[in-house]
Formats: sequence, C-alpha cells, structure tokens
Amino acid sequence: MAIDHVPQAGVNANAPQVAPLDASKLKITLSETLKAIPAPESLVFGGTMSDHMMIVTYHPETGWSDPEIKPYGPLTLDPTSSCFQYSTNLFEGMKAYVGSDGEPRLFRPNMNMARLERTRDRIALPTFDTNELIKLIKKLVVIESRWIPNVPGHSLYVRPTMIGTRPSLGVAASDHATLYVICCPTGPYFRTGARPLSLMAVGEHIRAWPGGTGGYKLAGNYAPTFLPQKLAAKAGYDQVLWLLEDRVTEAGAMNFFAVVKREDGDLDILTSPLDGTILPGVTRDSMLTLIAAHGSKNSLRNIPTSLKLYPHERTFTIGELVQWSEEGRLLEAFTVGTAVVVAGVGRIGSEGRDDIVLPKHEGSMGPIARALHEKITAIQEGREQWEDWSVPCS
Amino acid sequence: MAIDHVPQAGVNANAPQVAPLDASKLKITLSETLKAIPAPESLVFGGTMSDHMMIVTYHPETGWSDPEIKPYGPLTLDPTSSCFQYSTNLFEGMKAYVGSDGEPRLFRPNMNMARLERTRDRIALPTFDTNELIKLIKKLVVIESRWIPNVPGHSLYVRPTMIGTRPSLGVAASDHATLYVICCPTGPYFRTGARPLSLMAVGEHIRAWPGGTGGYKLAGNYAPTFLPQKLAAKAGYDQVLWLLEDRVTEAGAMNFFAVVKREDGDLDILTSPLDGTILPGVTRDSMLTLIAAHGSKNSLRNIPTSLKLYPHERTFTIGELVQWSEEGRLLEAFTVGTAVVVAGVGRIGSEGRDDIVLPKHEGSMGPIARALHEKITAIQEGREQWEDWSVPCS
Repeated sequence: MAIDHVPQAGVNANAPQVAPLDASKLKITLSETLKAIPAPESLVFGGTMSDHMMIVTYHPETGWSDPEIKPYGPLTLDPTSSCFQYSTNLFEGMKAYVGSDGEPRLFRPNMNMARLERTRDRIALPTFDTNELIKLIKKLVVIESRWIPNVPGHSLYVRPTMIGTRPSLGVAASDHATLYVICCPTGPYFRTGARPLSLMAVGEHIRAWPGGTGGYKLAGNYAPTFLPQKLAAKAGYDQVLWLLEDRVTEAGAMNFFAVVKREDGDLDILTSPLDGTILPGVTRDSMLTLIAAHGSKNSLRNIPTSLKLYPHERTFTIGELVQWSEEGRLLEAFTVGTAVVVAGVGRIGSEGRDDIVLPKHEGSMGPIARALHEKITAIQEGREQWEDWSVPCS
Repeated sequence: MAIDHVPQAGVNANAPQVAPLDASKLKITLSETLKAIPAPESLVFGGTMSDHMMIVTYHPETGWSDPEIKPYGPLTLDPTSSCFQYSTNLFEGMKAYVGSDGEPRLFRPNMNMARLERTRDRIALPTFDTNELIKLIKKLVVIESRWIPNVPGHSLYVRPTMIGTRPSLGVAASDHATLYVICCPTGPYFRTGARPLSLMAVGEHIRAWPGGTGGYKLAGNYAPTFLPQKLAAKAGYDQVLWLLEDRVTEAGAMNFFAVVKREDGDLDILTSPLDGTILPGVTRDSMLTLIAAHGSKNSLRNIPTSLKLYPHERTFTIGELVQWSEEGRLLEAFTVGTAVVVAGVGRIGSEGRDDIVLPKHEGSMGPIARALHEKITAIQEGREQWEDWSVPCS
C-alpha cells in the first residue's frame, strides 16, 4: 500500500465555479405508500427507519447536486468507493421532540453542525455550509413529524451521515461525497428497566489517544469498539469503561460523569476534559451548563439549592474512583449521550480489583443524574425554556 | 450515542447450522462485453477495474451465500449499514504476476489471509475459512489473467474487501457482511520517474498508538491520514513520515527502512518493530528475510557477499536519523509496500530542523534498495524461486 502522491483537486477548496450546497434547491418526492408506525413501547433503537430521507451528492467538477427528500431507499455505490476502502465516513446524532403545542423541535443543532464541520475537515471531505444542512434537516423533520412519538422520553432520532465516494483505489482524500439524513423513532435506549448499567474498565484496547481522532465523530472510531464490547458482555458487564493508561475517558459510546462528595459536604461533578481523546458531546456540554446553573440561574428539581454543585472538566483515574468509593464519597456515576440522554451506573469492574459498587437508588439513577435527566428532557420537549437550546423546525 | 447492550447473535460464532464459506459452490457469470485494456504506460493506480468481481454475503440466520464471480458492478446497500455508520471495513492488498510461462502467480497470499483474519476478528465481523477465499481469488485471477500486463514491474493488483452490512443504527458489531474481491492492472505506483520520495515527519497527528489498531489493515486507519497528507503536499513533500512522540513508525501507507553504516563497515538495516503501531507488511517481512539471507543462502545482486547486512526490527527516532545523517552513516532510506514494492527516499523534513538529505544515486534508489527491489520482483514474477512465496493460480 502507498498513498497516491497526485494532489487531489477540489477537495475542501470548492472552487468558485462549483455549486455550493443550497437548501433552496430542494426537490421533494413524497412516498406513495406510508409505513405503519410501530407502537412506542416496541421500538428498538435504530431498527425502524421513517418513510423519507434527505440526500445530496458532491462531484469535484460540478459541486453539490440539488438536495432531494425522497422515499427511504438503498444507496448504490462503486466497490472502490472511499467509504468502503478507507472509511472516509462521519455521522451525527440528533433528536427531534414534539411538545404539547405539536411543534417539532431540534436540540442544539448548531453544536452538531459545528462538530460535523470539524470532523469533515479532519478527514478532508468536501466542504459545505452547515446552515444549509440545518434547513434541510428541519424540512425532513417536519415531513416526518408523524413519526415522533408523543410520549415522554420518546423522540425522532436524526442521523446525518457523510461518506466519501471517490471511485478509485488510490490512497487519497475523497473528492466525491454523499451526504444523507435518515430518521427513526426512538424510546429509552437501554431497555434495562430499573437496573443501572454495569461497566467494565478496559485498558488493553484503547479507544482514543492524544493526536488521534477520539475528539471527532468519525465512523472509524466505532468499529474497533465492538470486540471489547463483546468481551465486556461475555464477562457480564453492559458496557466498556475506556481507560487511557489509568485515566477514565468515556463509557461505551457515551461521556462519563462521577459525583464525588467534598469535605464541605457539597458535590464535585467530574467529567474528562476535551483533550482530543474525548468526544465533545452535546449532552455532556449541556450537563456541565445545567450543573453550573444549580443554585443560581435555574435549579435542579429535588436538589436543595443550598447544596453547591461544582462541575469539573478534569482528568481522573480508575484508582481515584476506587479510592473515592472506599471513602464513601463516590455518590453517583452516570453516562450521557444523545441516544441514551442519561443512564445511571451501578457497578464498575476492573482487572485485579473488586468491582466498585455505587450506592443503590430507586430506579436506575441517583438524585443528581435523575434531576439532570428531568431538566434536560423538559428543555428538549419544550416544556422549559433554556437559552436557544430548543429550536422549532417550522 | 450509546452502544446497544443487546448481545449480537451469530457474530464470530458461526453456529453449526449456518453455511460456511464454500468455494466449491462458486457460480460464474462472465461479462458479455469485455472492456478495452489500457496501455500499461497509461495506468493510474486503482483507476481502471477489470471485467469481473467475486462477491459473497453473510446473513446471521443462513450464513455465507454461494460465492459468485460476475461482471464488475455497484453494491446496493441500506443507508443504515454498519460500513457507512461505524466503518466496520477492512481490506487487503495483493498482486498477481504473470511470468514467461504465462502462469499467473500470487505473492505470499497466506500472509494476506492471516492478516485479514486478525483484522476481521479485531472488528468482530463474521468469520470464514480464508483457504476458501484464496481458492476464490485464484479463480478470479485466472479469469482476469488477460488484465495482467506482461511488462516487468507491472501486475494485477487484487483488493479483497470485507464490509459490515448490518442494517440498523444500534451501535453493535455487524452480524451481516459482504466480502468481495476486485482487481486492477497496475504499473509503477509513484510516477515520479527517477526522483526519490520526499517525506515530512509529522508528530502532531498520530497514525497509531499501542492498544490501537495500527497493526491491523482496517479501512478506518486510512481516513485520518488524508489531512496530514494534504498538509505535507502543501509543504512540498510527497508523503508523511509518521512519528509517535519522536519514534519513526511508518511512511505514508508504507513501512519504512533505514540503512546505517556500522563502525566495522557493514550495514545495519532498521525497520520499526511490530509493537501494535506498525502494519505487519508482507513486503516488509519479505525484505527482512532477503536482507538476512544475503551472503549465505541467496545473495543480493551487485552487493558484495563480503558486506554483511544486519536486519533489525527495533525502535529508532527522528533524532537518531538526524544524527546518523550528520555522521555520514545514513546511507539510504526507503519505503516498502505491496502497491509501491520499493521506493527510495531522498529527503526527510522535520519541524525546526534542516531537512535530512540522503546521498544521491542514479535513478531513485540506493544500491541496497535497488538490489532488494530486483530480487523481490524476480521472485514475484516467477523468474527466481524462493521457498513457497510465489504461488501459481491454476
């Protein structure tokens, strides 16, 4: 194998003569037969796709095609395409909620678009204006709004995907691309009921490293996680807790938080810093904001305002978790992400040590995780306002 | 995002009731119109595919389908497929040569199959017997033998590819897969003529890390290399020399060798060890064997047998390369890989330092690289025998 040294024209340059992505050129073709929508309680994440998809393609000589919303259907691609050979693929995870006013809302879509742009740049795919993509996503969500379950904790999961489609085996950036958006109705991600998640700390397989791609939403970050995930499941744990040396980084494909009691009785709430090994999660960022606002701007329900919560983006180790647990100070651990929102952690295993067992709580979450979950869900569903986080689609 | 905790049935388990990959069930459908074959001197690597492809699919309930050799054509896949969303993709690079006897030969195909198996396992794709795949590849090469240019330095590049095709967004191992093999005629990979390659040492972006996937032929290892490659090209270098901290690891998508004169006048020939950050290249392994055999079993042409060559798989740094160069001991550097075979290096840039300039030679290679290139090419083309390296297809 060798990288083709011929410079690629057109990638990330978008010479003036090629067409930009333009949502005003959208063509809509509605499906003649609509699917039956499954009952909310029967939904399996990502298993049932909605009726339509948005799709648009980039060619280095002509630029972006006219975007289309059309019936959901397969992609047809040359076997040499970069997406298969060199995994020039990225995605985003977003959710659309419907409130009591019937209006579909997206949650902080600008954050997803900014991350998509950084990831696209990192793998040298053709550029576009993400504001145009937001317009297209809103159109698609409005068309698919009958798919949004009007049940608390349910939503329409929206998956923007971008794949390189350069039809050549030469090892070089993809100067062809397809950008598409697909949707599926979703309920609770983990169907574990009232049981919290168990995590197995893994240091042998490393998810991400400084100078690597762990801070980007690259498709290629996920394939290597499936073997460790299977090994964790075999050992009786739900998910992997990823270590980098002894540092705790993420859990499964989610960000990880620990709630630690301070000597003054207040709470430190820790998550790993964005040093390039951590996905900058939209839910992670929202949690840090909601934690910081407690007691002042807008407090968490059922948490005394006299209890101070200190959010920290800082490095911490599995050894520290063990120590805090032994000292009785590790009150809660939880994971967050767009798909899962918030999930409580009940147990953390690591090699050569007894499992860390977290305090038990009614349901699957401790009071902090539960309060954060309630708060963010209220904002997402439009029952509470918080800055410009909840964005109407119409 | 969150990993689906539901255990995946059938992946890497191949329950007895599902069909194994079976080359004896091959169905062949030949193309009714054959393509015109480009002149060898006009070939661009990976740009023109041959008439046919081999394809076979895995379904968790039924196992492997009957393999097919059929006219080359597109793949049709659901937009949720794992190959797009989670980059559950791998490939191999092999070459078929035709000798003066007209017989097509593969070069050390067992090594590619062993690496494919390790990579497949690392990303938890469904398993199969790689001996069956070799049989299918040989069949395809024989059918496509008119595509092998009968010109020295030319061959048929063979690209086995395996992609996960599970049609669901749940973050879990792919229990569906497509395995396919495509071919293209190929000549010299770098059309730089008599000019050696220039490399730019890059430490900011890290290709691979201990505990990561650099030792596997994962498609996902390649997408993150395209941005650094573009930055290197912009700075006037052909390829990237990948560093891990100050350690030299690989160059572009090739293994890297340095030839260093010892105090006793003999030569140390160094390449990085297989510590998990280095792709275990078939050409790399072959070079180490040919170097070790010089002076005893089978010597390199135009290199005195009295000159001892010491192959070393050991860590070395960019600082050591600079020092050896300043001492006049860095005689050659070269890169190796299946596509490139061998390419000489003329210059290595690294930040804050003057470029390392390698001694100039007639053509693009020093005497050691040239002798190794001649030897391996003779073996690949069947003009020389070396153990069981060259494997007839009929």
